[in-house]
Amino acid sequence: MTYEELAALVNRSLFADLGYTDEDGRQNIRRVFCVWHKGLGRHLISTNTSSAHVQSLLRNGNACLYFSDDAAFEGLCLCGRAVIHTERAFKELLWNDGDEKYYPDGIGDPDYCVTEFVAESGRFYRYDGKGTLTSAELAAFDAGRDFENGYAKTAGNGNKQE
Amino acid sequence: MTYEELAALVNRSLFADLGYTDEDGRQNIRRVFCVWHKGLGRHLISTNTSSAHVQSLLRNGNACLYFSDDAAFEGLCLCGRAVIHTERAFKELLWNDGDEKYYPDGIGDPDYCVTEFVAESGRFYRYDGKGTLTSAELAAFDAGRDFENGYAKTAGNGNKQE
Repeated sequence: MTYEELAALVNRSLFADLGYTDEDGRQNIRRVFCVWHKGLGRHLISTNTSSAHVQSLLRNGNACLYFSDDAAFEGLCLCGRAVIHTERAFKELLWNDGDEKYYPDGIGDPDYCVTEFVAESGRFYRYDGKGTLTSAELAAFDAGRDFENGYAKTAGNGNKQE
Repeated sequence: MTYEELAALVNRSLFADLGYTDEDGRQNIRRVFCVWHKGLGRHLISTNTSSAHVQSLLRNGNACLYFSDDAAFEGLCLCGRAVIHTERAFKELLWNDGDEKYYPDGIGDPDYCVTEFVAESGRFYRYDGKGTLTSAELAAFDAGRDFENGYAKTAGNGNKQE
């Protein structure tokens, strides 16, 4: 798969799978809404600060993020780390009208945070073969890019999130 | 969610996400075709013995298996361990006409194996809340059940796998 094909997979996804180690040291996965991306290497996820996976990631940030399209038989697993942000800039970027139903106190709600996944390597799978992405390849592809709502861009609609 | 609702989620799934620790000690996820289930606690997956995740699971069998339905906002994460089977009975059970394209030497192909995921606990998520499954609850639900192709049963077709 080319970088552009991998970016297309990421951008048309609404959800990804976040793999992490839970507080008992076990493998765990959480399906997350994930539409904000900086190229292939950085991805933002709105989350409740109190949720179990955020608490686990604060203890152990090693994680992976998996994008897949079953119909196309495409998958991309990124390995790296998760950083929990409570800075207002991140929270404003991902905020949508109506998010008060998840975070009653609005953008400043202490139970609202943004998880940033930072990839250090990647491995992709498709019907026609598999391959790897190094940290240097990710950095080169991502250079000069900003965070964008890939799904909104792909779907061609004006919403920040669907 | 009731046990029956969780079993319906599992049975209508074609794929699940297998979370494991790779040879570098990192979190990793592999999307797997997973339609053979014994209740909620045991799941079978045909795999190439040579694939990276099988080699990692042979070293460290701690794993999780995640079933999800994005449209219904349902998810079930099972924590447990993966056991790699090379016994002919497992390989015969999951074999389909045409699998020679993956395993040229047929059922006896040494590159063909069956991964059994054995759940020890579970956690489920739906729009209306979340909850947990204990080992005892899984055992009680699964008692007296055999492995079945849940997808074929749900879809009402006669194929062993789709």
